[in-house]
Amino acid sequence: MSDARLEENKRTVLAFYRAAIDDKDHAAAAALLGDRYVQHNPRIADGAEGLREFVDTLRADFPHLRAEVKRIFAEGDHVVAHVRGVRVPGGPATAIVDVFRLEDGRIVEHWDVMQQVPEESRNPNGMF
Amino acid sequence: MSDARLEENKRTVLAFYRAAIDDKDHAAAAALLGDRYVQHNPRIADGAEGLREFVDTLRADFPHLRAEVKRIFAEGDHVVAHVRGVRVPGGPATAIVDVFRLEDGRIVEHWDVMQQVPEESRNPNGMF
Repeated sequence: MSDARLEENKRTVLAFYRAAIDDKDHAAAAALLGDRYVQHNPRIADGAEGLREFVDTLRADFPHLRAEVKRIFAEGDHVVAHVRGVRVPGGPATAIVDVFRLEDGRIVEHWDVMQQVPEESRNPNGMF
Repeated sequence: MSDARLEENKRTVLAFYRAAIDDKDHAAAAALLGDRYVQHNPRIADGAEGLREFVDTLRADFPHLRAEVKRIFAEGDHVVAHVRGVRVPGGPATAIVDVFRLEDGRIVEHWDVMQQVPEESRNPNGMF
């Protein structure tokens, strides 16, 4: 896998965050998917249709939701992003890691893990 | 960053899981740390001392805890692992992503996100 393709895959994933999360624009997000979208987030159904439902729910419930990508990595066909999500401005943050698999530059599979950032910590470093 | 160094960093992280999580052997885990260990998990204090406390707690509370590394990626100084943790054999699983930063082949910083795997899902694919 060339470095250029790894960087291109990262740019595709960053565009996907902008479309799906920041803009909540299902059509723009779906344009970045391949011929399928295998979903591992247990709250989201498979495929572009599952993504549409999810984006519609975000727009309805958390219209000001923003995702800040803190670091992003790529190896082979995978892109991994460590993300700070805030559903309601000024509200609690969620720590998220998303793993995407791409084929021919399009997103075809997604896993994630998410956790609310607690108010207290045993160390001074923050979750990001 | 050469491919050989990326693979070496992955092997170091896999050895760290074996030592810290499977064997709960603080000394073996601490031998893989650099001259510091910046901790971002809010339940763990900084440094090798924080790691010791954490490993001791695991040994006391979850002596049969196992971590199964499902996929592992490396880019630059970072290694990312997607892990299925089971605290009690046959009990519920936890989905975890750990991000490690290494310097000169030793682990110097750690972030993670964890979430319990729910019993029900909107898709048939599992969280891994």
